[in-house]
Amino acid sequence: MLTLDKVYHASFVLKEVLRPTNVIAAPYINPEADVFLKTENLQVTGSFKVRGAYYKISQLSDEEKQRGVIACSAGNHAQGVALAAAKNNIKSLICLPDGAPISKVEATKSYGAEICLVKGVYDDAYQKALQLRDEKGYTFIHPFDDENVIAGQGTIGLELLEQVPDLDAVVVPIGGGGLISGVAFAIKSLNPNVKVYGVQAAGAPSMLNSIHDGKIECLDSVSTIADGIKVKEPGEHTFEYVQKYVDEIVTVTDDEISSAILAMIEQSKLISEGAGAVPAAAVMFNKIPVKGKKVVCLVSGGNIDVTILSRVIKRGLLKSGRSDTLTIQLEDKPGQLKGVADILASLGGNVVSIHHERASEDSDITDCVLRIVLETRNYEHIRQIRKGLAEAGFNIINK
Amino acid sequence: MLTLDKVYHASFVLKEVLRPTNVIAAPYINPEADVFLKTENLQVTGSFKVRGAYYKISQLSDEEKQRGVIACSAGNHAQGVALAAAKNNIKSLICLPDGAPISKVEATKSYGAEICLVKGVYDDAYQKALQLRDEKGYTFIHPFDDENVIAGQGTIGLELLEQVPDLDAVVVPIGGGGLISGVAFAIKSLNPNVKVYGVQAAGAPSMLNSIHDGKIECLDSVSTIADGIKVKEPGEHTFEYVQKYVDEIVTVTDDEISSAILAMIEQSKLISEGAGAVPAAAVMFNKIPVKGKKVVCLVSGGNIDVTILSRVIKRGLLKSGRSDTLTIQLEDKPGQLKGVADILASLGGNVVSIHHERASEDSDITDCVLRIVLETRNYEHIRQIRKGLAEAGFNIINK
Repeated sequence: MLTLDKVYHASFVLKEVLRPTNVIAAPYINPEADVFLKTENLQVTGSFKVRGAYYKISQLSDEEKQRGVIACSAGNHAQGVALAAAKNNIKSLICLPDGAPISKVEATKSYGAEICLVKGVYDDAYQKALQLRDEKGYTFIHPFDDENVIAGQGTIGLELLEQVPDLDAVVVPIGGGGLISGVAFAIKSLNPNVKVYGVQAAGAPSMLNSIHDGKIECLDSVSTIADGIKVKEPGEHTFEYVQKYVDEIVTVTDDEISSAILAMIEQSKLISEGAGAVPAAAVMFNKIPVKGKKVVCLVSGGNIDVTILSRVIKRGLLKSGRSDTLTIQLEDKPGQLKGVADILASLGGNVVSIHHERASEDSDITDCVLRIVLETRNYEHIRQIRKGLAEAGFNIINK
Repeated sequence: MLTLDKVYHASFVLKEVLRPTNVIAAPYINPEADVFLKTENLQVTGSFKVRGAYYKISQLSDEEKQRGVIACSAGNHAQGVALAAAKNNIKSLICLPDGAPISKVEATKSYGAEICLVKGVYDDAYQKALQLRDEKGYTFIHPFDDENVIAGQGTIGLELLEQVPDLDAVVVPIGGGGLISGVAFAIKSLNPNVKVYGVQAAGAPSMLNSIHDGKIECLDSVSTIADGIKVKEPGEHTFEYVQKYVDEIVTVTDDEISSAILAMIEQSKLISEGAGAVPAAAVMFNKIPVKGKKVVCLVSGGNIDVTILSRVIKRGLLKSGRSDTLTIQLEDKPGQLKGVADILASLGGNVVSIHHERASEDSDITDCVLRIVLETRNYEHIRQIRKGLAEAGFNIINK
């Protein structure tokens, strides 16, 4: 049974491992509300997961500790368990699917875990972990459906009530539901007037569907850039806590998540992973009634693959007019490229790449097509450049 | 005259505007030392500059306040002055060169400043600011060569001694020298055993050269991605303080700065601008004797243009084997592209772009050239893919 006592105890135990994480004002997320970010992306291991894992492991019996722990995760839970086990001087074995990003494998190793790469996907790694638990006697550390794990995550709720006086609402990501179960339990137990909202990715609404239908349901497939909350089925305990303590669940799209990630980079200088950005996305895109309220968005983690990050930024540049691609039809005669280059130079368009090709499908046989990717300042700048080229007689055939 | 009293006073005055900024462990910067980051990139306005600007403005006479303040900057100083003026309920006018990034102009406006866009470069904007000061009676707020500004920046020194017990060394960026003058003065006054190192960009070593030659020198030109410390000439006051209080000055290249920015993104989830990353770069690349020492790198700001950020990340992906470009010579017959695609799919190479072209200069008239940009996992993965293609008889003509 989860009790407030247990959450306070977790808070006390966790003092020896946690970094304090600030709550930072972020008015740009929604100018109509008083928005703050709880920066668990700056937590040790780059996510809140260390809280639950550490408290769970600290409460094992000496005999269980001696046998070591096992977990299955390609992400934040793996790093949390690895660090928690190392700090408790016990052995940990983490099963990962062999396609897991090398950066996450290396990070988990660096905290001292032994790694077992399993051929296949997450489910294969999970089966392997259970098999090893049964064969070798390891204690399995569930990523969310465990009351000590939930108590550990709940310590964030205590901190928020302490850090933000007159708090009106907390917005929390939901994957399996461990984080929001702990946070909602702690907050509602102490101050039932504070609203607790959950956010899922539109491509993985497992808890939302289950709550809606009043019973746990398993999605056939899940798809989202927020891999930390890409979960097919809620836990039994977490389903109950969410049913009892969470006010409302909403969803956000991958596009909305990307915008929130980029906004936090530009305005708050913080890297959030997809799962960490869903609360900010929900508040940015008015999925939650926050007008005039004091709201905390829980930035649950920052472990985003740099490849994904690069795509999010590229997309953001396009959307804000800081990049443009021009496809120009040229006559196939000398001097044409120079004409275009002169105009771009005079208008301050910075060339990223140029691709010049003869006789494409959609042009006359004597024509060329020039494809230019530019760095631009904003939409107005793009308009000026396109206008300058058109006035000089160049035919821009895209958009 | 700068006194410790003044720095303590600044610290007291600044309480009403500053965010507390944590010192966070960052062992990956240099595993042989005990490295921490002072996160002034998370400060209000995204940099430390608000400290000096706010303290300076708070100390103006009522009459000076009534006439308003003027500053010239395309960067952090502009935002610091704008916010500080707004909080003191006085008018501010910021002169910027008209090519300044729109994001910085908008940020400065958003803090309530009036903006004067001046045709030309920084020096033109500076002349315009002095002219307006003389004509309209504004108080000019110098970005670094002013003792109240220096006292404001020095408050970071007091915080570091408080936040990091047994500190051995502090590493600080140098542009004009305001930040390091304040920090070094405060730290050396309280504990002369703590080393204070300065770091400049290799393309803008104005303070280093001046200290070396024993007199203030002006560089003809400066070039670095660290625009916050791209300064041609140290100040008179700052030159004296650096001469007296700083132990050593070193430089880092743009490449080293980029690596430090990327490392802080991946490991600490923090966005640093170029200037903010020079201390971390110096410690990463062993420019400073830190072995076995407890060292703080001052991450002075996070206001980096997203376009630059995108380039830093792209370069980082290439350097760590997470991106590869293949140029493959194909016979010009059906089925060739499928052959390549099959191999890429089976080996898990993720295609970003493909460019297929006939008859290039460096191939037979019957051949095609296929240029593929791939996302890969690491160098080993690139090797596997290249080996797979070669074994299937495809001729990779690059590298």
